[in-house]
Amino acid sequence: MNGFIAVHCGAGYHSDTLRKEYQKTCYTACRKAAQALGAGGNAVDAVEKAIVELENSALTNAGYGSNLSWDGLVECDASIMNGQTLHFGACGAVSNVWNPITLAKQLCIKQCDNLSLGRVPPCILTGNGARTWAERMGLEIVDDKKMISARAFRNYKHCKRKLKRYSLQNDVRFSPLDTVGAVCVDSNGIVASGASSGGVSLKHEGRVGQAASFGSGVWAFMSRDGITPSVASCTSGCGEHLIRTQLAKNTAESLIVSSPALGLDKCLKENFLESPFLWDVPERLGGTLGLTFNPQIGEGELLWGHTTKTMCIGYMSTEVPKPKCIISYLPVKADVGRKSVVSGVPFKVSKQLSPVLQWEIMTEQNTNGFVS
Amino acid sequence: MNGFIAVHCGAGYHSDTLRKEYQKTCYTACRKAAQALGAGGNAVDAVEKAIVELENSALTNAGYGSNLSWDGLVECDASIMNGQTLHFGACGAVSNVWNPITLAKQLCIKQCDNLSLGRVPPCILTGNGARTWAERMGLEIVDDKKMISARAFRNYKHCKRKLKRYSLQNDVRFSPLDTVGAVCVDSNGIVASGASSGGVSLKHEGRVGQAASFGSGVWAFMSRDGITPSVASCTSGCGEHLIRTQLAKNTAESLIVSSPALGLDKCLKENFLESPFLWDVPERLGGTLGLTFNPQIGEGELLWGHTTKTMCIGYMSTEVPKPKCIISYLPVKADVGRKSVVSGVPFKVSKQLSPVLQWEIMTEQNTNGFVS
Repeated sequence: MNGFIAVHCGAGYHSDTLRKEYQKTCYTACRKAAQALGAGGNAVDAVEKAIVELENSALTNAGYGSNLSWDGLVECDASIMNGQTLHFGACGAVSNVWNPITLAKQLCIKQCDNLSLGRVPPCILTGNGARTWAERMGLEIVDDKKMISARAFRNYKHCKRKLKRYSLQNDVRFSPLDTVGAVCVDSNGIVASGASSGGVSLKHEGRVGQAASFGSGVWAFMSRDGITPSVASCTSGCGEHLIRTQLAKNTAESLIVSSPALGLDKCLKENFLESPFLWDVPERLGGTLGLTFNPQIGEGELLWGHTTKTMCIGYMSTEVPKPKCIISYLPVKADVGRKSVVSGVPFKVSKQLSPVLQWEIMTEQNTNGFVS
Repeated sequence: MNGFIAVHCGAGYHSDTLRKEYQKTCYTACRKAAQALGAGGNAVDAVEKAIVELENSALTNAGYGSNLSWDGLVECDASIMNGQTLHFGACGAVSNVWNPITLAKQLCIKQCDNLSLGRVPPCILTGNGARTWAERMGLEIVDDKKMISARAFRNYKHCKRKLKRYSLQNDVRFSPLDTVGAVCVDSNGIVASGASSGGVSLKHEGRVGQAASFGSGVWAFMSRDGITPSVASCTSGCGEHLIRTQLAKNTAESLIVSSPALGLDKCLKENFLESPFLWDVPERLGGTLGLTFNPQIGEGELLWGHTTKTMCIGYMSTEVPKPKCIISYLPVKADVGRKSVVSGVPFKVSKQLSPVLQWEIMTEQNTNGFVS
């Protein structure tokens, strides 16, 4: 299977010292997704595999190494949306599940099941119930302590100590925004999107953020008529604000215009920076990664936008050998949380072709490097 | 404070024997809401008080007497949205909290708080975390058994016994749809909406339904310009389907047209019965109760619509002495889950007036009975 995958490891502030590592993490995540497609997986599988890689990294605020809650535990949110079936699976405030995104994917897949007694498969599972479901599905369950990275524990201790002394609001070392996400379109034209987050530092037990809320953390909608483009998006930022503004759905839908970059720019302004839902929020911190794809011509655009200082993004076509990973910056003079920046790149996805043709296209693209 | 309140105790099938009781429950709920307004409460307080009454009834699938989960426990979802602040508070899969709607209201109110360390108050709390938060707020916490009514326990035993023998999909006695909701506009023009649900019978532990999902269970949006009408709505039905279709937000927004009844009818058809999100759902069971209010002239319309056999509704203006409670029916020949019915009534809300003027208006209305 061919396809195009893009990942991010958070809209926030990526310190100089760690930037290379963030980019490396995105790089590996893209490769894992491409491998999944190569092995016959679809867009949903690719999104899952990319995010598993991001969760397993201690750098990101997702899965292992997530921010700790007030009680010193890791509680994760994750979701996946399949743009073809329009099914959504999410887990919220779940502990002990090594890869929350895999749990979300299983919940999404199980939406197709018919249960007896007219019951409907759950699309959102939380807390202990989510863990026991994951256990029954055979997913990897680990001890509380195994989810906690040294860095997350240091930050937790530091935050708790400082809590009563001064506000750390602008202390970038405790930026809670390194949530992760991925979007993908495969050569069958299926689009999918996923997100995973450990939530804000020192959050209350049981708190559920955007990564487990329908329309807020992820969105994917595959063309029903072959004419309207397919879209997918995932978001990062302050969960409560992304929920109120349903940023994933809104940004995805903003890409269904002749100029997706202008569409996204307008959307970030009107539906986020100037949103009536955030009237009482002084700094509107968020970011989004989205794609739009025209199934008729096999072409699309990847777009990203954020109001945070930086956003770390990786993307890759299976038809080129290497992912591209970049740090996107808000212009130096623009106020964080008050201005947005939008950029993007075009991409192509070939339909399934014979190996020879595939090879020819790959060679050509390696020379031209169309995703640059 | 004056105002107009409407409540429902579920879109589903209300058996002949219990109809009077359902209507009585709605009646009392309306009166409690009117009392709250009379005591100076706003629309949010009125919605809470109405739903507390509905939760306390063993008839409804909310609070006490809710459907039991697979493990034989009551796990509740509830949410409130304030159309003025646009704040949303929700609790999901919470046990032992006697009135989940009060917990949702407190979460909604606390959205205004400034926390140290740049943390943001949670808008959605689930499971144990929701219970401990409620406990700290001084809300009433009870034993597992105290939440279980005799009827709910009988149904649970019956369902479990029958589970492997035949499908009870169409067994109306186990209709899981008696969730409750309320919408209100007060004489300051504030609109609010609330919902509370015990979720589907035999649901998995930790499952969260529409009543705790943003945009799905409740919606309230107060006019920003004084010209566009204010709207509020709440939904009932299969949680997963209401989440996928974000029915509360969609139906509320469908009322912002010159003919709200036509708007709602179109919305139920396009965004529910024919929704691409429900392509794999054979029976689309849902209902909505909404209001639209023009703050300039103090007039509005209450609308309801459902695809289920019946929906039980009560409504009341504080300017008349008694609520009106009705059972709305799908036309006899219409297929449940495939056709919808929409109806409504107009209402008025006077601005705060001197006691003498208030009395005159009340007398006049008692004679004319404008909400009929």
